[in-house]
Amino acid sequence: MIKEGDTVHLKGKKDSFFVIVEKDKEFSTHKGTIKFNDIIGKNFGDTVLTHKGEEFFILKPTLYELILYGIKRYTQIIYPKDSAYITLKLGLTSGMKVLESGIGSGALTIVMANALNPDGKIYVYEKEEKFLKNALNNLKLAKLDHIVIPHLHDLSQPIQEKDFDAAFIDVREPWLYIENVKSVLKKGAVIGFLVPTTNQVIEILKELKRLNFLDLEVEEILLRSYKPVPDRLRPDDRMVAHTGYLIFAKNG
Amino acid sequence: MIKEGDTVHLKGKKDSFFVIVEKDKEFSTHKGTIKFNDIIGKNFGDTVLTHKGEEFFILKPTLYELILYGIKRYTQIIYPKDSAYITLKLGLTSGMKVLESGIGSGALTIVMANALNPDGKIYVYEKEEKFLKNALNNLKLAKLDHIVIPHLHDLSQPIQEKDFDAAFIDVREPWLYIENVKSVLKKGAVIGFLVPTTNQVIEILKELKRLNFLDLEVEEILLRSYKPVPDRLRPDDRMVAHTGYLIFAKNG
Amino acid sequence: MIKEGDTVHLKGKKDSFFVIVEKDKEFSTHKGTIKFNDIIGKNFGDTVLTHKGEEFFILKPTLYELILYGIKRYTQIIYPKDSAYITLKLGLTSGMKVLESGIGSGALTIVMANALNPDGKIYVYEKEEKFLKNALNNLKLAKLDHIVIPHLHDLSQPIQEKDFDAAFIDVREPWLYIENVKSVLKKGAVIGFLVPTTNQVIEILKELKRLNFLDLEVEEILLRSYKPVPDRLRPDDRMVAHTGYLIFAKNG
Amino acid sequence: MIKEGDTVHLKGKKDSFFVIVEKDKEFSTHKGTIKFNDIIGKNFGDTVLTHKGEEFFILKPTLYELILYGIKRYTQIIYPKDSAYITLKLGLTSGMKVLESGIGSGALTIVMANALNPDGKIYVYEKEEKFLKNALNNLKLAKLDHIVIPHLHDLSQPIQEKDFDAAFIDVREPWLYIENVKSVLKKGAVIGFLVPTTNQVIEILKELKRLNFLDLEVEEILLRSYKPVPDRLRPDDRMVAHTGYLIFAKNG
Repeated sequence: MIKEGDTVHLKGKKDSFFVIVEKDKEFSTHKGTIKFNDIIGKNFGDTVLTHKGEEFFILKPTLYELILYGIKRYTQIIYPKDSAYITLKLGLTSGMKVLESGIGSGALTIVMANALNPDGKIYVYEKEEKFLKNALNNLKLAKLDHIVIPHLHDLSQPIQEKDFDAAFIDVREPWLYIENVKSVLKKGAVIGFLVPTTNQVIEILKELKRLNFLDLEVEEILLRSYKPVPDRLRPDDRMVAHTGYLIFAKNG
Repeated sequence: MIKEGDTVHLKGKKDSFFVIVEKDKEFSTHKGTIKFNDIIGKNFGDTVLTHKGEEFFILKPTLYELILYGIKRYTQIIYPKDSAYITLKLGLTSGMKVLESGIGSGALTIVMANALNPDGKIYVYEKEEKFLKNALNNLKLAKLDHIVIPHLHDLSQPIQEKDFDAAFIDVREPWLYIENVKSVLKKGAVIGFLVPTTNQVIEILKELKRLNFLDLEVEEILLRSYKPVPDRLRPDDRMVAHTGYLIFAKNG
Repeated sequence: MIKEGDTVHLKGKKDSFFVIVEKDKEFSTHKGTIKFNDIIGKNFGDTVLTHKGEEFFILKPTLYELILYGIKRYTQIIYPKDSAYITLKLGLTSGMKVLESGIGSGALTIVMANALNPDGKIYVYEKEEKFLKNALNNLKLAKLDHIVIPHLHDLSQPIQEKDFDAAFIDVREPWLYIENVKSVLKKGAVIGFLVPTTNQVIEILKELKRLNFLDLEVEEILLRSYKPVPDRLRPDDRMVAHTGYLIFAKNG
Repeated sequence: MIKEGDTVHLKGKKDSFFVIVEKDKEFSTHKGTIKFNDIIGKNFGDTVLTHKGEEFFILKPTLYELILYGIKRYTQIIYPKDSAYITLKLGLTSGMKVLESGIGSGALTIVMANALNPDGKIYVYEKEEKFLKNALNNLKLAKLDHIVIPHLHDLSQPIQEKDFDAAFIDVREPWLYIENVKSVLKKGAVIGFLVPTTNQVIEILKELKRLNFLDLEVEEILLRSYKPVPDRLRPDDRMVAHTGYLIFAKNG
């Protein structure tokens, strides 16, 4: 049963809205206004009418939708095509202890936390207080905040925790911090990076080699979408051509 | 502490082996023989020597490595680039109830089960007994078999369960079963498919439209890898150009 | 020496304009006005000043630039990435006799004519008079109109010429005309097609097989561009993801 | 009529051979032996039988086939997907004067020469005598040797010619020679490069910027092929993922 504070996906014939239900308030669309009180107490899968009589499904947002449409963004997020792959390449599963820096808007953190549920932990190192606060709110929205242990500083500071099973670094000059991170990684732990430029890839590879990391990999993920028309099946005209290079290595 | 029956990743300077530890037995490499009794009782991250004195790390295989190297395959598996993305597109998270058919070698099932841990369930429909048995063994290896409820029949049979939150269909002619699956899906539930040919995509799209599914999407994921050499950074000469088309829709 | 009627490329520090020189007229830019009389009599590579004193190079447009910026378009043109490859796949060289239908805006025709220069011929079949007229003007601009022999009808009509060395078909339902075209192709001649949808590819392949064409090929060309910044080398954020599928076969 | 010395494409049901016809000699296939005297005097498009009665078409090789299968290779060739695009980006057309270094096996030179036919010229600078000799033989095979003016030295030597309309550089460290080449280029002339690594791209971009070249572009061309089966249309499993980065700029 839907209650105040729940995030709902209102899905009409052509439109989708992701909103938080607030008692005695309403939500306006160009198809008319929806009263939240008409939603509270219903079940996911039920419908609600606007004051103009337009029908909307009340759906439970998936984790995917929360990340793309439900979270508040202060930064460019890591896209699902990348965050899903990163999480699997790091091999995240319940019980693992993971280091992440920085947190951005928490889009990757949510996907990683979901894989670590119920008994894994992400130790986040983020120097921007407003990013950290916002990301933690986003994790709450996804009901995965219990997985995260936040720290308000970057990786140039000593890291108090140790014996990490994996690490993911998404900062501008990651090569500056690899030696520090290595000192708290278990042997064989996977470290990952995402950077937009080839120059950054080159710097990271140099430092990983200097520090005897093993199994270096550089990859990129491309997502191509098609017009879903059975009589005229063809790729979309344009696509995202680049989000970033992914780099992985094992602590040797 | 490592004990009999554990899967270990033996990592030398150039070679990697994924083996199950068996008491009083040994394992041969071209760098010499390793006695499993020398491994039992050690911790992950420790090293072991071959009879020729060659050193190997004893590492805990990640979920990613289990899928690619540790599981026994009877079929072409769904690759990590695809299985990670599918799992996120379906929005899988603890508490959800998911339908999957068929199970293949369980590579996708493992990734989905990990996202559903601890309180989700995958109801698997697979008509080949040897596939089902092997896949369940693979899930045990990944310690995720508690998430799976197996059924030894395909989707042409009535489905006893209902109110599924998501479904993934990987069979040769998926369009034959969509109507049956729809009858047990919740409103708004995401259904996904993977097929290799454009002809299959066209048939699936036709049937999804006929049955009033919403938000149809056709996508493909391409993974491009680079030679990890800082002085000569460049893509690999060749790549996998196609595994399959991914199709997603919402039950309308 | 530049004279009236020449197409020139006016290249400033940031802007490029492709214009035809007309006596006693002028051309306005947001950097000021350029008198064409100041250009007539100069040589390519010289500069000209706007009335505000801004300097522009007077360059001879390359064939590539003529196609992308100089020709008048009534239709979506075939992009250089595709037209260059098509021309080479057809194996076009001086002395060959080529069939093309339709002509569109002549962008592909120009590239093919250039490869056929000086002694090849393109027999064009185009039913839209305004397309044909415009394309012939564009070929004149490229000084390649002597290669083209135009016909104002489509391929449903009998083709008077015969013994073609190659053919390229760019119409909506090419499969309707393949049998007619085959009757005028030499043995071993290459036929090519460009179509946007997989459904069209499937229809063409069926007909080519029915008519015993050999060496069927389906290909697509993707062009990915990078930001040309040495300190931050990376792909552009977005790219054209699809122009069309290319199909080639040999007359068997 | 086919005569001694002609290159022919012998095309059977499943096999293709590109051979030079030699009087009184024969050619063996696993489908039987073909006597060249049975080919001399016939026309392209005719057939010939092996001593086992297997039929082969006698086809005239296209320029495309000559490049891929007919020329003798001492080096990795520039692939048609790249050479076709380079030729169009340089804007090559009859009357232009082009600089090329090195020549490799002449695969690109053939495509460029074809676009420059009849009144263009390519001044080739190549320091390896055996490469130059072999490439010139390949150009003869394509009947395009009249377009090429060879020089047996590299670009570190003074270049006697000047006023080039375009240049293409395919050597290991192209940045060493850009200043020398610039001194013989017309204003506005396009210069192009092909290099395999991002490090080389970065060095070239730095030097082009230092020398005030304009309109810098970095691109790559990807060719994806499909299985040409109408009932099961799908991309091939694997593809060439990288040949090289293309760089273009204009002399400013």
